[in-house]
Amino acid sequence: MSTTKKIAISGAAGNIAYQACFRIAAGELLGIDQTIDLQLLDIEAMLPKAIGVKMELNDCAFPLLNSVNVTADPNIAFSDADYIFLFGAKPRTKGMERKDLLEENGKIFGPQGKAINSNASREVRVLVIGNPANTNCLIAATNAPEVNPNQFTSMMRLDHDRAKYQLAKKAGKTIASIQKMTVWGNHSSTQFPDISSTIIDGEAAKGLIDNNWYEKEFIPTIQQRGAAIINARGASSAASAANAAIAHMRDWIFGTKKDDWTSMGLLSVGNYDIASDIYFSFPVLCQDSNFTVVDNLEHSEFARSMLNATQSELLEERDAVKDLLG
Amino acid sequence: MSTTKKIAISGAAGNIAYQACFRIAAGELLGIDQTIDLQLLDIEAMLPKAIGVKMELNDCAFPLLNSVNVTADPNIAFSDADYIFLFGAKPRTKGMERKDLLEENGKIFGPQGKAINSNASREVRVLVIGNPANTNCLIAATNAPEVNPNQFTSMMRLDHDRAKYQLAKKAGKTIASIQKMTVWGNHSSTQFPDISSTIIDGEAAKGLIDNNWYEKEFIPTIQQRGAAIINARGASSAASAANAAIAHMRDWIFGTKKDDWTSMGLLSVGNYDIASDIYFSFPVLCQDSNFTVVDNLEHSEFARSMLNATQSELLEERDAVKDLLG
Repeated sequence: MSTTKKIAISGAAGNIAYQACFRIAAGELLGIDQTIDLQLLDIEAMLPKAIGVKMELNDCAFPLLNSVNVTADPNIAFSDADYIFLFGAKPRTKGMERKDLLEENGKIFGPQGKAINSNASREVRVLVIGNPANTNCLIAATNAPEVNPNQFTSMMRLDHDRAKYQLAKKAGKTIASIQKMTVWGNHSSTQFPDISSTIIDGEAAKGLIDNNWYEKEFIPTIQQRGAAIINARGASSAASAANAAIAHMRDWIFGTKKDDWTSMGLLSVGNYDIASDIYFSFPVLCQDSNFTVVDNLEHSEFARSMLNATQSELLEERDAVKDLLG
Repeated sequence: MSTTKKIAISGAAGNIAYQACFRIAAGELLGIDQTIDLQLLDIEAMLPKAIGVKMELNDCAFPLLNSVNVTADPNIAFSDADYIFLFGAKPRTKGMERKDLLEENGKIFGPQGKAINSNASREVRVLVIGNPANTNCLIAATNAPEVNPNQFTSMMRLDHDRAKYQLAKKAGKTIASIQKMTVWGNHSSTQFPDISSTIIDGEAAKGLIDNNWYEKEFIPTIQQRGAAIINARGASSAASAANAAIAHMRDWIFGTKKDDWTSMGLLSVGNYDIASDIYFSFPVLCQDSNFTVVDNLEHSEFARSMLNATQSELLEERDAVKDLLG
């Protein structure tokens, strides 16, 4: 057993963290030989509920769970953290403009970025789940100038897995038969779920799947899936978001599967002619807590227009929070 | 990979099932080489929400999850089921007498027992979590006369794990150092968490722990822990209950650890002079989906009075539901 790893979780009293904490404590992230400390962060008003989460974590008698600390101070929560899940964000309320939402979240993710910069392990890996995730990630990363921006990623894995399931179902194949799915761009309704390089049971998905279904049904289904879940459950995705967050971090740390890749929001440095300085989702290979963008994929005119649309949205988001970037 | 296993879950739209389903689908119950079908049961009014759970399960793209079915018919839900988690129960509402609660639940667990009898695998293992769990289990089991009553158990694992944590904390030791905890009797405030055979790091707990703390602090803390969680979270234990349910079923199937045992509610046949024909929690060794009660433990006068108290409550519960027993 190696040294105990410190895992920090923001929005600890929220619904996604309530799903994620217990799975992480059970060993689903780092395996059953790795002890962990959980460092739970939430705002002052939510601390009693976060303490309830700590009580329940204790009640599970997890052999791997060395300690649980609850705090409203990001400097304490992120202290020496090896892995950070930023679940907590300000949800959009009625009448709130997109710009207001971005600014309200900036006020959370700016200080959190600074606290990471000052306190986290120099090898920390940070995953931003709280929406708008890509731009929140940009704010956090730019406020942590001493941490490599590639140590920050934003979550696209829920979209990626949703896309895999819908394609497998359409093709009448198993999940395991689907490889090389990509979801590009922003974790929003402009995202581009792309099957042009996807393989189903060794064959190109494009040759097996009707293009009309792909463009007219598949893409909107993935883009609008979050709203469909809210309609069905009366609450937004929590268990599936937590599952995706663990899967994202696990692949980042331990590597993507052979002959496959995953989708992650990461700092663009111009791959595929996407503007620099936005967190944009690309297909990536992971190994040993690092990632490499999969290059040299070809884009049709349709694909290019989809990439441009989601890029434009991210550039607008970036401009709206310019003052909050570090 | 062996044949796909069918796992039925009642109360599928509820909070405990929402925690359990995803962990089971991820392989935490049967391991990462075992495909599963999930058969989700809830009442008609909850089906839209249960369908939301199914949508989120699909969105996780779990490679082991072969299918998810949602139904309000227990005959369909339990069809060929290998493992059944009965989470769903009628909660106690304001002004409801204990007798009314028992009867209302009897109306759920009687028909469910019949549906198990007619439809489940002949090797089914059934775990009752919904409260009052012991007596609900009795009702279900007696309504399934063609299934061995030892294929039904009620959950005591949450109490058992809570007791392990509190003892480890008091002793300043790790969870892994605690062996042979027992919680006897009813999953209610009369339960008897008993450390008289418990080992801490190879030493008898009784010699290490102040008896006054044990009787005056430890026992009431475990007995009242459910209420303490509700006070902290504003909601009853869900994640920890789901964790305990998975741990209970996993130990039952794959066996308890070497030099250790667990606590399960099971049909008394008179061990320790406990009345027959109630589901009472005993210390058990498990192997290959069967259990054996740990015998020949000694009880002090104090312990005997605790056993008698929780037994009395279970006998009263049994008498209150006499008409509902099969």
